[in-house]
Amino acid sequence: MSKGKLTGADVAQHNSRDSCWVIVHGKAYDVTEFLPEHPGGQKIILKYAGKDATEEFDPIHPPDTLDKYLDGSKHLGEVDMSTVEQEEKVADPEETERQERIKRMPPLQACYNLMDFEAVARDVMKKTAWAYYSSGADDEITMRENHSAFHKIWFRPQILVDVENVDFSTTMLGAKTSIPFYVTATALGKLGNPEGEVVLTRAAHDHDVIQMIPTLASCSFDEIVDAKKGDQVQWLQLYVNKDREITKRIVQHAEARGCKGLFITVDAPQLGRREKDMRSKFSDEGSNVQASGGDAVDRSQGAARAISSFIDPSLSWKDIPWFQSITKMPIVLKGVQRVEDVLRAAEMGLDGVVLSNHGGRQLDTAPSGVEVLTEVMPILRERGWENKIEIFIDGGVRRSTDILKALCLGARGVGIGRPFLYAMSTYGQAGVDRAMQLLKDEMEMNMRLIGATKIADLNPSLIDVRGLNSGHHASVPSDTLTLRAYDPLQAPRFSEKAKL
Amino acid sequence: MSKGKLTGADVAQHNSRDSCWVIVHGKAYDVTEFLPEHPGGQKIILKYAGKDATEEFDPIHPPDTLDKYLDGSKHLGEVDMSTVEQEEKVADPEETERQERIKRMPPLQACYNLMDFEAVARDVMKKTAWAYYSSGADDEITMRENHSAFHKIWFRPQILVDVENVDFSTTMLGAKTSIPFYVTATALGKLGNPEGEVVLTRAAHDHDVIQMIPTLASCSFDEIVDAKKGDQVQWLQLYVNKDREITKRIVQHAEARGCKGLFITVDAPQLGRREKDMRSKFSDEGSNVQASGGDAVDRSQGAARAISSFIDPSLSWKDIPWFQSITKMPIVLKGVQRVEDVLRAAEMGLDGVVLSNHGGRQLDTAPSGVEVLTEVMPILRERGWENKIEIFIDGGVRRSTDILKALCLGARGVGIGRPFLYAMSTYGQAGVDRAMQLLKDEMEMNMRLIGATKIADLNPSLIDVRGLNSGHHASVPSDTLTLRAYDPLQAPRFSEKAKL
Amino acid sequence: MSKGKLTGADVAQHNSRDSCWVIVHGKAYDVTEFLPEHPGGQKIILKYAGKDATEEFDPIHPPDTLDKYLDGSKHLGEVDMSTVEQEEKVADPEETERQERIKRMPPLQACYNLMDFEAVARDVMKKTAWAYYSSGADDEITMRENHSAFHKIWFRPQILVDVENVDFSTTMLGAKTSIPFYVTATALGKLGNPEGEVVLTRAAHDHDVIQMIPTLASCSFDEIVDAKKGDQVQWLQLYVNKDREITKRIVQHAEARGCKGLFITVDAPQLGRREKDMRSKFSDEGSNVQASGGDAVDRSQGAARAISSFIDPSLSWKDIPWFQSITKMPIVLKGVQRVEDVLRAAEMGLDGVVLSNHGGRQLDTAPSGVEVLTEVMPILRERGWENKIEIFIDGGVRRSTDILKALCLGARGVGIGRPFLYAMSTYGQAGVDRAMQLLKDEMEMNMRLIGATKIADLNPSLIDVRGLNSGHHASVPSDTLTLRAYDPLQAPRFSEKAKL
Amino acid sequence: MSKGKLTGADVAQHNSRDSCWVIVHGKAYDVTEFLPEHPGGQKIILKYAGKDATEEFDPIHPPDTLDKYLDGSKHLGEVDMSTVEQEEKVADPEETERQERIKRMPPLQACYNLMDFEAVARDVMKKTAWAYYSSGADDEITMRENHSAFHKIWFRPQILVDVENVDFSTTMLGAKTSIPFYVTATALGKLGNPEGEVVLTRAAHDHDVIQMIPTLASCSFDEIVDAKKGDQVQWLQLYVNKDREITKRIVQHAEARGCKGLFITVDAPQLGRREKDMRSKFSDEGSNVQASGGDAVDRSQGAARAISSFIDPSLSWKDIPWFQSITKMPIVLKGVQRVEDVLRAAEMGLDGVVLSNHGGRQLDTAPSGVEVLTEVMPILRERGWENKIEIFIDGGVRRSTDILKALCLGARGVGIGRPFLYAMSTYGQAGVDRAMQLLKDEMEMNMRLIGATKIADLNPSLIDVRGLNSGHHASVPSDTLTLRAYDPLQAPRFSEKAKL
Repeated sequence: MSKGKLTGADVAQHNSRDSCWVIVHGKAYDVTEFLPEHPGGQKIILKYAGKDATEEFDPIHPPDTLDKYLDGSKHLGEVDMSTVEQEEKVADPEETERQERIKRMPPLQACYNLMDFEAVARDVMKKTAWAYYSSGADDEITMRENHSAFHKIWFRPQILVDVENVDFSTTMLGAKTSIPFYVTATALGKLGNPEGEVVLTRAAHDHDVIQMIPTLASCSFDEIVDAKKGDQVQWLQLYVNKDREITKRIVQHAEARGCKGLFITVDAPQLGRREKDMRSKFSDEGSNVQASGGDAVDRSQGAARAISSFIDPSLSWKDIPWFQSITKMPIVLKGVQRVEDVLRAAEMGLDGVVLSNHGGRQLDTAPSGVEVLTEVMPILRERGWENKIEIFIDGGVRRSTDILKALCLGARGVGIGRPFLYAMSTYGQAGVDRAMQLLKDEMEMNMRLIGATKIADLNPSLIDVRGLNSGHHASVPSDTLTLRAYDPLQAPRFSEKAKL
Repeated sequence: MSKGKLTGADVAQHNSRDSCWVIVHGKAYDVTEFLPEHPGGQKIILKYAGKDATEEFDPIHPPDTLDKYLDGSKHLGEVDMSTVEQEEKVADPEETERQERIKRMPPLQACYNLMDFEAVARDVMKKTAWAYYSSGADDEITMRENHSAFHKIWFRPQILVDVENVDFSTTMLGAKTSIPFYVTATALGKLGNPEGEVVLTRAAHDHDVIQMIPTLASCSFDEIVDAKKGDQVQWLQLYVNKDREITKRIVQHAEARGCKGLFITVDAPQLGRREKDMRSKFSDEGSNVQASGGDAVDRSQGAARAISSFIDPSLSWKDIPWFQSITKMPIVLKGVQRVEDVLRAAEMGLDGVVLSNHGGRQLDTAPSGVEVLTEVMPILRERGWENKIEIFIDGGVRRSTDILKALCLGARGVGIGRPFLYAMSTYGQAGVDRAMQLLKDEMEMNMRLIGATKIADLNPSLIDVRGLNSGHHASVPSDTLTLRAYDPLQAPRFSEKAKL
Repeated sequence: MSKGKLTGADVAQHNSRDSCWVIVHGKAYDVTEFLPEHPGGQKIILKYAGKDATEEFDPIHPPDTLDKYLDGSKHLGEVDMSTVEQEEKVADPEETERQERIKRMPPLQACYNLMDFEAVARDVMKKTAWAYYSSGADDEITMRENHSAFHKIWFRPQILVDVENVDFSTTMLGAKTSIPFYVTATALGKLGNPEGEVVLTRAAHDHDVIQMIPTLASCSFDEIVDAKKGDQVQWLQLYVNKDREITKRIVQHAEARGCKGLFITVDAPQLGRREKDMRSKFSDEGSNVQASGGDAVDRSQGAARAISSFIDPSLSWKDIPWFQSITKMPIVLKGVQRVEDVLRAAEMGLDGVVLSNHGGRQLDTAPSGVEVLTEVMPILRERGWENKIEIFIDGGVRRSTDILKALCLGARGVGIGRPFLYAMSTYGQAGVDRAMQLLKDEMEMNMRLIGATKIADLNPSLIDVRGLNSGHHASVPSDTLTLRAYDPLQAPRFSEKAKL
Repeated sequence: MSKGKLTGADVAQHNSRDSCWVIVHGKAYDVTEFLPEHPGGQKIILKYAGKDATEEFDPIHPPDTLDKYLDGSKHLGEVDMSTVEQEEKVADPEETERQERIKRMPPLQACYNLMDFEAVARDVMKKTAWAYYSSGADDEITMRENHSAFHKIWFRPQILVDVENVDFSTTMLGAKTSIPFYVTATALGKLGNPEGEVVLTRAAHDHDVIQMIPTLASCSFDEIVDAKKGDQVQWLQLYVNKDREITKRIVQHAEARGCKGLFITVDAPQLGRREKDMRSKFSDEGSNVQASGGDAVDRSQGAARAISSFIDPSLSWKDIPWFQSITKMPIVLKGVQRVEDVLRAAEMGLDGVVLSNHGGRQLDTAPSGVEVLTEVMPILRERGWENKIEIFIDGGVRRSTDILKALCLGARGVGIGRPFLYAMSTYGQAGVDRAMQLLKDEMEMNMRLIGATKIADLNPSLIDVRGLNSGHHASVPSDTLTLRAYDPLQAPRFSEKAKL
């Protein structure tokens, strides 16, 4: 102790699995017992055992995390930071190149669509942050299919409709909004922007767009609610905790703070394996030790157990009435993936479902939301249930044409996630603002071009979905020898030298 | 003033949004009030505020533009050009390379098909001109689908037909023509060739091909009509102005000058966003200022308002009888995209429709004209209406096989646009002439090869359209890891050294 | 004249369109009047006007050409070749590289399949010869589809059949043969091998394979017949001349010389445009002259007229009885492309048809022979006509699996053309021999693997043709921006440096 | 002789086809008469005639091979190895590079899926070993289709199922196992790992996974059985020998040693041609001699005859009762490829079939096992036979999603071959262990994500197989000219220089 504070040396002694202290924002914590509970695994904590973990901790955890999840007895008090040894940072050539690219970044006005933000983000985001945002499950087939599915739907536009005045405002779960998309919940906003999710809150306000607040935000829930202005609408996305009292507290707090909808995630009883993300985190340390199989087993079980305390894999249909009993917010299931489950949700009096596969991050070769939508709507209409329950979709929405297709099919709105993260991670709030404006510009134009002046004009006769409703095809593997022997046609050849 | 003329210095003072003068062809104009009306946006004018704008102005505007659209009071009179400061041109390495490529251009005879002109144009046209001509809406999916759609139609050729004499002349809207394609309307011909659209007029004459005159031509309407010879047939493409008197004047003038058909564009209540075009115009100036969202909103509204005075977004079916009342020319709707609208046009007594998506420049994932044709014709035949209305298509036509497929389906003729622009932009009139001759050569050969000696022989039994009538498919996204781990078969290896 | 012979100088005076002499094999010919008749166009002759054309003439013309097609009065007699000026050959860097590649050619044993010969040929053949053999019509879509079509047919193999002894000999048009393929007719064999088509004759003999003799062979018909041994079977492929007496003479001569089948080509009333071939012949000379359109017209008409004397575009069904009257050989139509025409051929008592699109060299997007076969056979079987007429196919056959698929469908045999040309052009007769042996090795193995011991065992239940019978599909054009923004999964990374 | 041993010189005299001795593990053998019987061909033995062949011999032959297949009279006794001339090894640059790559190999933990092992193996395995394992028949279309087929099956996942406890253990042929895959039989394990198949035995034990022992293992059958522990389950894969007594001995020995299932290979009456493998073995020696066709014929017949003594091509359905009479092990046919043959197997009372195409190594464009499965199961269910016979599949299984799809369709288990070979060839037993653990990790997660807690929950309603049941498609060949003329959209451009 120096002047009643802990010293760096004090903390440094607790640098092992048996006694593990870490420093965060100038305070020391004993996380020895917490190690096996850590959702992100023990390994990452042990890397900082006896050291200052602030830089690693910050983007991934809301500021109230330690208070919420670590018993007071483990809060060891302040550390005299002048006594903590500074680790010398090794120059990382990849990071140097990234900083160089940031200096040469394209101006915001050069982004003309939502994919442009992604292209810039890929080059300027931290490698690990990019990997976390951009990764999907297994071979990322579903992740890519999500956008690709929209290209299998084509328009049948109407002409000679008076489209001078176009209005695409609508309502979702009873709340008015300027355009039928919402900012869907995505985790760990501070990986991309030091301010985190509140950046999205502010941009959503400026564009009169609804925001869904994620359970796994980097900002605390209250920070995000505090950032809203006026009658701005927010919803809550919920991972259901094994301890239902915690869940109840979260839900009722959200309702009290004005949230207008509860979206219960049902497609993630276990968080997906995302190999791009795993690979990006892989450190070469110790890599010469060819791990025995035993270790793999242990780590796996550890992760599964740890997560199970945050996300309850036993959540089932019989829990639904309990949710209906603890809140008056409209309740929506997020992550529904088949017709039968939509019907069951409707039968149980739920207010909506989001047809979603979690951005392709959970089960690979799960169908896109928009594909499930094409199967769900005709059956709902057959039963006269199309107004009994609101159907949302998310995943792969990048263009206003995507939004229009979903609405023609019968969706009430669509969620957009990653594109706003990329916009926020590259150009901050101005980026998100431009992304939203681009969608509005596209929306106005494309409403005109299909001959619709208001949301109610959108209907299935305006689209052709046959391409989406005949299963998932792949071509016969190519015949390499023939392909390579083929001598393709050439365009006219320019001379090598200028003619006189 | 010097000698009763304005000086460069006089004009240079009016170099702002508050007072904006520009010089065009040695005369000064006050465009301050016109700024918000400019269809191309204010920004481009302000770039030349107080300066000589001739070089930028010329390729984009017909010579009578200023007289027509700018009130006489804004015509400020002649400028003593010797007093106007010459801007030093900065050497642009891209432009230098382009000039170099032009010197090495392939000879015209090396162009064997219409794609060859496009390949040459891509390398020798000015970047901005190329971008304007070659760009399409959003992801340019419809633009590419337009040609690709023809590859989904296959022939069922007849053999042992006496095809010694082949005649592919036909009539369109009552006018005889040597071959069932016409030069469709495309804007801003001077971007590609200093003479503009009259080049097309001359080539069309030489090949007995019909030309459609665009509203947004670089040459004035009268220049284009003046260029015709003998009983050459021309049609008028019309953007309908909010001020119907202007429209009436245009239509009746065209009829008086001998136009034989009126093609009303109905797929462009708002001109499309073409990102390749937008990106090519983007200048780095001021790009360090990260624009606030507010600016984006303003510019967008500005553009929408400006265009709305040239193209009336409120145009609707109820305007049709008025057109029928002001002209005796056959009236054709250009840009019809669904069966219902073809039937409605027929019911209203219109003379034809062009199944078209505006060259893929308006709504992305709108279907190709030829796809809509496969849906329209069986229904027209069912009703016995196949001769009640003439059906044209445009978009993606590059080969005589494309023309033959459309005619087998039941089209009366097809429009071809970009290929002639590319031919004109690379080799001038000789280029257009060769392009037309190539189509005729292909046509003669392919008529023989499918066993048809005249247009009337073409019928649906000669083609297989199943590939076009099962929706729009996309393959399952590829499994990158497996694909890359695969070690493809190799052809026999050549030795590294010669054998002894 | 020197010693009763013409001198080089004598000939050199006749070097223009007005008087055009050429030397071939030491004799001079006056071809002035013949110029417009030349099937290959005037241009190529004029290039040699007044000069020795032997080297260019040889690979393209059978030795008896001049006697047959040029009136005796135009044969000017011998030339004293010592007086003819030798043109200095300019070193062509492409040719030098080719010679270099020939020295490094892979050994014949490194060719394991028919595509391997094509891959080698592409690198070692003369550019113009390669272009002539490898080119197809327009975009070469049909040419490539021909092979690709076989990949849409999959097997349903039988197991546990005793396949110890496999016999794939069969009969075609009554003639026995060791394997159900024949060497189909292809033109200009000397482009690839100085000996020409007799190389194929010899290899065909050694493998007991039938050869079809082409009308446009480089060897004369009699040379090819003279090369056959024992009871080797040959057929005649016929282009029908406008002058039916010439045709009659050819047919009856062939019958007299022992040909066992007459294959009348019906898919080439006009020889196709093959752009790869045209482009390869294009010479830069005069290319600075931007040709006027008029010239293009002339050349086109000239070519069409010239060809029309060799191949009669007026040939039609009503000519068939005449053929039946002049020969007792079985008559087969080569180039049938739709069901109706097969039925008509059967009704007229013809002995067979070849479902073929001329190797994709005539009409692009004409269907593959094997696709037409899948449509034809069920209808023939329905009528009980499957034995009334023999059905052959050609185009794209490269593997014994291709042959087996055609035979399972009901074909009696398949023609193979280009692969043997490539084998002959690279490794001579040994190449053709190996190509045939490879097919036999594959055939023996694959008969066993599908559970068939003889040709009669092959039947439609052994294959799945659904992929071929649902039209021709093309994917939605790819969304470039999304595709490029996507960051594909990576395999594990090797360290940059070795580990210690 | 020196000290009663043979000398190198003694052996070296017998270096020809007429008298051919080789040394293996210090002993000499006279293989002159055996030459034509050698399944791998004579050529490879003759390469070592008169020399020490141990290094080449070892990975390909079980240690008991010479005792089993070469008559005692041909065992010539020990050789004094000090008298055998050592061949100087020529440094092979490819091998040097490979050794270099091995030093930089990624750590095992960097492998996150089964494809990763393949990617590493491609870079670190011996070229010939890689070619043997990775090659397939003809164009390797079926080999690649095997995995690709799984991508045409998509999930219809259930939500809100209590998936806290997931159990994917099952039984196959009555034996319990921890997970429904087994290690299928693959030949020549020592090519990849000096210990050979016993490595797989050990890993299979640790993961409670069943192993199928291959007839063509590098280890002897007894070595592999000796390596098993406790009640570990093994099956026998059988190539049926022409000499049924040999076969009987093998089968009954296997049963006596505890094998729990007999898998008779029925898709290989002749071993397939695998060109990648053939090409990798091709040596340049003698390659200047352009082989006459005659030689090709000889070699082919030789190989066919040789193999026929090991694998009986006459094996047929009528042999089945005999197998049933000589063993009590459950009998399964491995390599069934059509519905009819599954039904026949069931009718004959067989215990199971493996729907398989031999890993794509036999007949190209044979269907994948999983495709056949989609056709078989509905028919078995229709007849109420789904429990009468166990259906397995193998080929292309790489992910637990692949396993789940097969089980949803109705398979009892799936075989996995190459991935474990690659894991063993790169990281030894630890690699195989990790590969198995990865599958288990994926399995637990994906069971949860589709809403299944036990194998019995898997059923056809959880998947969409439409993409697999509409035949094999290939796109129209691409239009190269258009594709290349197209100027794709670009992402925003980074500046060349950093902004100030």
